[in-house]
Amino acid sequence: MANLETLVALAKRRGFIYPGSDIYGGLAGTWDYGPLGVALKNNIKNLWWQHFVTGREDMYGVDTAILMNQKVWQASGHVASFSDPLPLRSDLESEPRSDLKNPKSQGLTLKQFNLMFETKIGATGDAAITYLRPETAQGMFVNFKNVVDSFHPRLPFGLAQIGKAFRNEIAPRDFLFRAREFEQMEIEYFVKPTDWSEQFDYWHQEMLGWFNDLGLVTTKLHELEVPDGERAHYSNQTIDFEFDFPFGRKELAGLAYRTDFDLKNHSQISTVDLSYYDEETKERLIPHVIEPTFGLDRLILAILTNAYTEDELGGEKRVFLKLSPQLAPVTAAVFPLLKNKPELVAKARSVFDQLKASPYQLKAIFDDNGNIGKRYRRQDEIGTPYCVTIDFQTLENGTVTVRARDTGAQVRVATDELIDHLNKKAPISVVDGHRSASG
Amino acid sequence: MANLETLVALAKRRGFIYPGSDIYGGLAGTWDYGPLGVALKNNIKNLWWQHFVTGREDMYGVDTAILMNQKVWQASGHVASFSDPLPLRSDLESEPRSDLKNPKSQGLTLKQFNLMFETKIGATGDAAITYLRPETAQGMFVNFKNVVDSFHPRLPFGLAQIGKAFRNEIAPRDFLFRAREFEQMEIEYFVKPTDWSEQFDYWHQEMLGWFNDLGLVTTKLHELEVPDGERAHYSNQTIDFEFDFPFGRKELAGLAYRTDFDLKNHSQISTVDLSYYDEETKERLIPHVIEPTFGLDRLILAILTNAYTEDELGGEKRVFLKLSPQLAPVTAAVFPLLKNKPELVAKARSVFDQLKASPYQLKAIFDDNGNIGKRYRRQDEIGTPYCVTIDFQTLENGTVTVRARDTGAQVRVATDELIDHLNKKAPISVVDGHRSASG
Repeated sequence: MANLETLVALAKRRGFIYPGSDIYGGLAGTWDYGPLGVALKNNIKNLWWQHFVTGREDMYGVDTAILMNQKVWQASGHVASFSDPLPLRSDLESEPRSDLKNPKSQGLTLKQFNLMFETKIGATGDAAITYLRPETAQGMFVNFKNVVDSFHPRLPFGLAQIGKAFRNEIAPRDFLFRAREFEQMEIEYFVKPTDWSEQFDYWHQEMLGWFNDLGLVTTKLHELEVPDGERAHYSNQTIDFEFDFPFGRKELAGLAYRTDFDLKNHSQISTVDLSYYDEETKERLIPHVIEPTFGLDRLILAILTNAYTEDELGGEKRVFLKLSPQLAPVTAAVFPLLKNKPELVAKARSVFDQLKASPYQLKAIFDDNGNIGKRYRRQDEIGTPYCVTIDFQTLENGTVTVRARDTGAQVRVATDELIDHLNKKAPISVVDGHRSASG
Repeated sequence: MANLETLVALAKRRGFIYPGSDIYGGLAGTWDYGPLGVALKNNIKNLWWQHFVTGREDMYGVDTAILMNQKVWQASGHVASFSDPLPLRSDLESEPRSDLKNPKSQGLTLKQFNLMFETKIGATGDAAITYLRPETAQGMFVNFKNVVDSFHPRLPFGLAQIGKAFRNEIAPRDFLFRAREFEQMEIEYFVKPTDWSEQFDYWHQEMLGWFNDLGLVTTKLHELEVPDGERAHYSNQTIDFEFDFPFGRKELAGLAYRTDFDLKNHSQISTVDLSYYDEETKERLIPHVIEPTFGLDRLILAILTNAYTEDELGGEKRVFLKLSPQLAPVTAAVFPLLKNKPELVAKARSVFDQLKASPYQLKAIFDDNGNIGKRYRRQDEIGTPYCVTIDFQTLENGTVTVRARDTGAQVRVATDELIDHLNKKAPISVVDGHRSASG
């Protein structure tokens, strides 16, 4: 198991994740994705979107604004109740103390602190208060009617969204885990009220299947049925999916039965009728909602935690990321054995170009910097499943060395069979449909 | 040429773009992307990323936080000078008047109004002011050193980012054109100071090539060399790419020579050395920057404007979107001729599944709703290049009807040649490398 400091350091050194506003000493709770972090994140987002949106016929993707009319957050209950207790010294209200145990015994009072970031929209005189959205969900509820009017979908159907959300956490901590700016992948699945339990079970299995596809080790994944009195204000049933992070077992994703809470409240406050006309029964009803929600940054942290491996290879200690080929920022690194032999470099460039032109989602990079052992270690640390080396034998018989990350084992493969070989070893996704993780 | 109201109405009716917070009467300057709008937007983002990031070896993609330390915006000059004049009635300072001509003659004074959205981060006592980023650029400058330390790139090289930015426009208007929340696709390309002019010319041509790839009509695209005194505070040379929108010729994208303004200022204010060590000359230098920047929402508006077409087909007026196949939300719609003939529906489903499983980026949908003419019109309005109909002849000889959007022409194609046919007619991109627009 990786410890957190090791992961944070590797993520920074190798260009996955940097502290936000780093040269200014940071800004607590914000993180910037570097080149490899973006690649990993995009791989996850694309797989999620293909699996849950374009791969289905009952799902409607949306991308809604972060800034919404403040009435949205009144209707959703966030203005009234999206807060954490903030311990304050009774004699000095402006000085907060965070994360104290037994605040009352220490002469502290608790003040409810709303976690939404507030801003003003519009010029001085007619400026209105609004908030940075604390969840992407409301953008979907607010567009329920628009999507129904455009597409006339039949129940059950869902809206799905990937996007940023913001929470002014009192004590951001644990790397990507509790950040003030983060990304969510959420589905609001609208069902007939009588079908909610069956649909809840269906989405429960769908979520487990997705975690399995990602290659998350199942022994690190746990389910927690959230008991009465501890659920969010809108939910009648919730399962938290927890993961064994380096800092303990914490929430990774959730599945909530939101009832008709949101559509009903938005109908009331907006005075817009958000009921749905059921063509079969000829009746109007307010659909109920099953919400599978994934924290993208937490998922990335879980994937890195899961992938981090230390072992010995050829008598030397090494670190590698055991990322599945579909998630790895680089699928194959192409090396000329020596950078000062033009014929090796030219051949390596041609193999590289061949991989780049493949119709598979094969991410190739070219690297001629340093000795081969050093290049292997560099690719190990960023989780590249395969390294392809072009050497003098390549010039003679057209075969290259393919070295597998996890075992260090090397095989020679004919150049014109290379793509098939990589694809068989590590089936690379084509579009609209995802594949099982391997590697 | 489409007028704006027609475009806005079509975009809403067909599920491309909805007003933000619609059921609450909206929130000025915010827009939500519906299912087809997300698909169009994702196609553009993916093409841009493949063309400018993964398709190159000198570009490093990043994804940085929207919330940054306020010192970033002091160093960038935005706190001091990112403002518009706001006319105020002298006797009533709190009441702004926007967009007035000759404000002074009407007894109004001008106040500088900073366009950054302000918010507070942290709990009550130690809260710090910060801003929603008004551009994605600074996230790249702030990470210049991190990327150099992780990847040791040689000059010239670039950082690239796609992300949201926010400006509290005094008068948001013209649909997606002047919004308060919008998305940018930006490159900061770092060059040796002596190379800036050559690199400026290179990126000028790169941008023109990209617009051409998108299929934008070149007669609607214009270049404006921004004269001295009118450029942004950081720029020594700027070309605006303007487009003939329904509301006139307006800026679509820009190319700016930012000199060493940003890296120098960030070095000074952060006291972190952002100079670059040149291995060849063994000297330290502050690289200069060429910045190609694209407004994603404006690009979508330009593409919709460009695509909107009215004509007559078979004696009837029709509207269609002449989107290139690479941009269209749907590449091929698959229809069973009649929905109440199980053998037609089953065969149509099998053709649909075959298209979905293709290794090409082929976006297929299935539609059995309404008569064929009505289905054609619906696909025309969302810009689907090809409709594939399965009829009784299909059951006899295995051929389907492929109907082309722009001409209405129909040809019969054997089922097992369908993917090749569609790909030849409308070459569908494989990964890492983009193709020319056709259609």
